[in-house]
Amino acid sequence: MRTDLIERRRRLLGPNVPTFYDEPVHIVRGEGVWLYDADGRRYLDCYNNVAHVGHCHPKVVEAIARQAGMLNTHTRYLHEGILDYGERLVAKFGHGLSQIILTCTGSEANDIALRMAQAVTGKVGIIATDNTYHGNTTAVAHLSTRRPPIGGWPAHVRRVPAPDSLVAGGCDGAVFAGHVERAVGELEAAGHGFAGLILCPVFANEGLPDVAPGFLDATVAAVRRVGGLVLCDEVQPGFGRLGSHWWGHDWLSFAPDVVSLGKPMGNGHPVAGVVARPEVMAAFREAFGYFNTFGGNPVSCAAALATLEVVEAEGLMDHAARVSAAMLGHLRGLRHPLIAGVRARGQFYAVELARDSLPAPEAAAAVVEAMRGRGILMGRIGRRQHILKLRPPLPFGMDHAAQVAEALQASLDGVPA
Amino acid sequence: MRTDLIERRRRLLGPNVPTFYDEPVHIVRGEGVWLYDADGRRYLDCYNNVAHVGHCHPKVVEAIARQAGMLNTHTRYLHEGILDYGERLVAKFGHGLSQIILTCTGSEANDIALRMAQAVTGKVGIIATDNTYHGNTTAVAHLSTRRPPIGGWPAHVRRVPAPDSLVAGGCDGAVFAGHVERAVGELEAAGHGFAGLILCPVFANEGLPDVAPGFLDATVAAVRRVGGLVLCDEVQPGFGRLGSHWWGHDWLSFAPDVVSLGKPMGNGHPVAGVVARPEVMAAFREAFGYFNTFGGNPVSCAAALATLEVVEAEGLMDHAARVSAAMLGHLRGLRHPLIAGVRARGQFYAVELARDSLPAPEAAAAVVEAMRGRGILMGRIGRRQHILKLRPPLPFGMDHAAQVAEALQASLDGVPA
Repeated sequence: MRTDLIERRRRLLGPNVPTFYDEPVHIVRGEGVWLYDADGRRYLDCYNNVAHVGHCHPKVVEAIARQAGMLNTHTRYLHEGILDYGERLVAKFGHGLSQIILTCTGSEANDIALRMAQAVTGKVGIIATDNTYHGNTTAVAHLSTRRPPIGGWPAHVRRVPAPDSLVAGGCDGAVFAGHVERAVGELEAAGHGFAGLILCPVFANEGLPDVAPGFLDATVAAVRRVGGLVLCDEVQPGFGRLGSHWWGHDWLSFAPDVVSLGKPMGNGHPVAGVVARPEVMAAFREAFGYFNTFGGNPVSCAAALATLEVVEAEGLMDHAARVSAAMLGHLRGLRHPLIAGVRARGQFYAVELARDSLPAPEAAAAVVEAMRGRGILMGRIGRRQHILKLRPPLPFGMDHAAQVAEALQASLDGVPA
Repeated sequence: MRTDLIERRRRLLGPNVPTFYDEPVHIVRGEGVWLYDADGRRYLDCYNNVAHVGHCHPKVVEAIARQAGMLNTHTRYLHEGILDYGERLVAKFGHGLSQIILTCTGSEANDIALRMAQAVTGKVGIIATDNTYHGNTTAVAHLSTRRPPIGGWPAHVRRVPAPDSLVAGGCDGAVFAGHVERAVGELEAAGHGFAGLILCPVFANEGLPDVAPGFLDATVAAVRRVGGLVLCDEVQPGFGRLGSHWWGHDWLSFAPDVVSLGKPMGNGHPVAGVVARPEVMAAFREAFGYFNTFGGNPVSCAAALATLEVVEAEGLMDHAARVSAAMLGHLRGLRHPLIAGVRARGQFYAVELARDSLPAPEAAAAVVEAMRGRGILMGRIGRRQHILKLRPPLPFGMDHAAQVAEALQASLDGVPA
């Protein structure tokens, strides 16, 4: 173990800055779906969705290097970069979602999304699901439940129970809509009014619960009835990961008012953004003179454009659909008494571990550690961190799927029921 | 004029996304202190502090390209990049400021700085100057006065009059401390309590008013007396721009509790950060599980390290001091009845235009447009946008200074008194 690096981190970064794994991995190189540590050991990366088209994809690296050597400046001058990319991006959207703001992080994007709802409605109340994470700015962190915010819970945020496959009726759209309607009533009664509902369309941090297309119909109708906005956080499912659709909201089949983008957008380069309908954008732009120094700079746009073009040129969305079907088959073949559910949303996989319908986080932790020992990096999600999460770069293929399934079975075999 | 690009911007970005200049500049290439438009016309860049060591500096471009081709991932694994850079960075600080969080934007950095003050004190009240700008997140935008925030002015923020060279006693440290003490009292009386005071140590957006080292002593003493924190936004003055000192707080001669960094840090690459004392960092880290997916990634750290090394290797801080002295001489030689003050803080210059001590924004606007016509890009600042701002990349040299002074005189000559 590199105790020297751990000690340097502790000294420089302070306390409570965890690394993954009991014995942290010291990664020095990445290529495609592989990460390499300082000893030359190879890891199959089933965790990092940020390296969307594969670690260090040469087309993306080349685009960054070329543009960084040509020009990198802000958007108060005219430049084709943001326009060429932005037009390609919005062409991927329906529902009148045709205008963009580019930022550097998904947190910044969600911070804007919340304000868009507030600008349109003139009200401040926000509803989020109760086990979600939308980012780290003050306003966005207010949506999280993991720890009370500094300064206390804000009164204008209400949380509704996230869909949950372990709970009877937990994935029923009418039940969810009822929760949202109740929260709207509370916000109105408290004088905040209701601005918008924010959610991830695959409920990624909730562990991809068993919701099906149409799940959100009653909720969206309820939100529209009271003049609120639906804010869709596509930071995890977006950009073709789902295989069947470019965006999570198209898979779940609803029309959001605002979409937030992030992690995979530039294959690791810090670029993110918000897509909205023109009237929503105008309300925000007129209420607030938003400017982001680095947002939409030519290098970030070149990275994002190259990433989008690689997804298209290499057919990675269709590839995701094919591999996902095979991987789901493998996952369904896993045998262990604690497996309570197996789900795939394209190249995003969840294996829920529970004992008598109660989450089994210690088993999930043991599997993640055992997989690391077998050279496979993955993670955990869910209300209790009891759901195995696999979210590899999109080039993850059939052979990798078979390898992961075999390693998962072996790792599960070492976990007591 | 590229009306096609302007129309594409309008369609894609929506309303109220201004470009600089009546006739926007269409920049396609940058090199050193020069920007080139699509027609091959060259502009001397006196605006863009982000390209700190010069546009497209080959060492920074090479560092980005090399690391982007090697590995770009998050900080939950061990990696030398953040450690090597972070240790070099904190070595530039005194006052026990030895720990860092890396983010992607100065806005994210300031958003953290505010929460650090709240975490340490357990109180929420923030004091800022009344013509400042610290960024664009919801929490940070609450500090701005330009437009009311969506949802209304927050009750926990109080503003104090910024130092102002046009006002009698406007740059008196005791007067400023009195304003801060009054605001602290208001926050305490309102039940918010006082967490911290945030300011730019050169008051950049206020137009570099005539404060001198020691100006903040009484204020800092007052803040410490009531247990508050001093948050120093070095996004504009930092990284050697001042010539005399690496940081603005060392020039103004006070010890901040938290320092925010941004724009120049990676020469345009989206990297930013917060530096704090260990006990402040610990309070924040224990109150809030901050994680930033892109923050501190190896490519951002490589860009930032290369930028820092170029400042050192090329002696750009000393260069800034030398050029600044010459440029200040030139600026003092300018002749126009509206010139009410001329100030330099290293490679950051301000020429205040006023008529009978009243700001003359229209004259400043005319000069900026006229300078563009002469091939020089610059901007405006100040409470009324009446102060000419020149903030070039650090390689800006003696010849450029002479050229700018000559163009400024010619441009001023065209402005009626």
